Amino acid sequence: MQRYFAKEMKSNHFYFSDEDNHHMLNVMRFQNNDKIEVVYEGQLYLANIEKLQPLKVTKEKTLSQIAEKNNITLFLPFMREQKLNLILQKATELGVGAMCFYQAQNSMVKYDEKKKTQKIKRWQLICKEASEQSKRVTIPTVKIVDQAEIINFSGHKLIAHFDTTVTIKDQLKNINEYDTIGILIGPEGGFSEKEIACFLDSGFKMMNLGALVLRVETAPLFILSIINYEQMR
Amino acid sequence: MQRYFAKEMKSNHFYFSDEDNHHMLNVMRFQNNDKIEVVYEGQLYLANIEKLQPLKVTKEKTLSQIAEKNNITLFLPFMREQKLNLILQKATELGVGAMCFYQAQNSMVKYDEKKKTQKIKRWQLICKEASEQSKRVTIPTVKIVDQAEIINFSGHKLIAHFDTTVTIKDQLKNINEYDTIGILIGPEGGFSEKEIACFLDSGFKMMNLGALVLRVETAPLFILSIINYEQMR
Repeated sequence: MQRYFAKEMKSNHFYFSDEDNHHMLNVMRFQNNDKIEVVYEGQLYLANIEKLQPLKVTKEKTLSQIAEKNNITLFLPFMREQKLNLILQKATELGVGAMCFYQAQNSMVKYDEKKKTQKIKRWQLICKEASEQSKRVTIPTVKIVDQAEIINFSGHKLIAHFDTTVTIKDQLKNINEYDTIGILIGPEGGFSEKEIACFLDSGFKMMNLGALVLRVETAPLFILSIINYEQMR
Repeated sequence: MQRYFAKEMKSNHFYFSDEDNHHMLNVMRFQNNDKIEVVYEGQLYLANIEKLQPLKVTKEKTLSQIAEKNNITLFLPFMREQKLNLILQKATELGVGAMCFYQAQNSMVKYDEKKKTQKIKRWQLICKEASEQSKRVTIPTVKIVDQAEIINFSGHKLIAHFDTTVTIKDQLKNINEYDTIGILIGPEGGFSEKEIACFLDSGFKMMNLGALVLRVETAPLFILSIINYEQMR
């Protein structure tokens, strides 16, 4: 069943973004009395398409839902849009809680402060659509952060880095299912020595990802897959 | 260091495809005595750019290399090119041995027999480039197969399927590091009842991938990540 995140709920009716209204009427071509799933404020509902012009969607009942841990934050360097979009979509599917983009010294792409609001809006839309498709009841947070916010992250702090004999398997042994985890991914050009020193000083621990040579957009998906697997019963 | 797969080696000189020659001369703009890594017949070499017009690349020495297990075969339904290309590239990075595409009853995309040779060639090129980038010494095999070839696969046979309480974690307990594994991924529309019955009859075992709802192109990357992780020391 198609799922949508509602913007508002008033006296048992749900209200959606213009894009979602368009999607329901012109892409899905819903008819009267078709059912949809609606998420509002983290709660999942079954809803009925009561009227089409204008669209009226009515709550039918509360549905049971899978609890989402949202305990993993990815720190990611700015990168080309295509790679960045891939991470936004796939990391959402793989249950990420938050994605924080930062300007690494060796980032291939420089971030343009003027486009900040517009970019964040577009990135959040990708996450919303991926959340609907993968049947989540939350949408990952997307932010742009500076180095201080990375350093001050509170929880297990891990850096994916080739220059250590400690594997991701070793590091995950120290982490429990509901623990908060921050994972820092470096840019294609690698961290600068100054950056690495600074992150290690602030409590980040290095882990290697094994023998594979992964691209910058593949590493976070590899890590999220593994953490999901470790927490599988 | 840039890596290339050579087509031929004759008296200590390597010969490459036209695309690779173009890449070395016009994209990388190599100069005399620049070094490259060359893979020829599964062996890694250090080589020297001896001359530019015409390009002459000379073997300098044999390099040590990481052994690749190549023990995992993915069986994948035909799907839209964009998703298929993503799997080809990312599964190569994640160490897949072979990718076999098949026509599922509910495949969204019908495969066009006339374009077979051309498509396979393009898919192999994507795998070759991903192998170079991820520093592999082998290129995954890409094939189009019929149902009989899937059924007759010899090794551990696993189907990613939601309709079982057996998890991927349970199934991997029965598999050793160098065992041959075939993993069957269904189409977006799901397997038909007839297909499932037929695959189970031939020894495929079902496994669910946990609570996440993954797209058809994400599931194989999730599974490859996990198998790599399980085999990490």
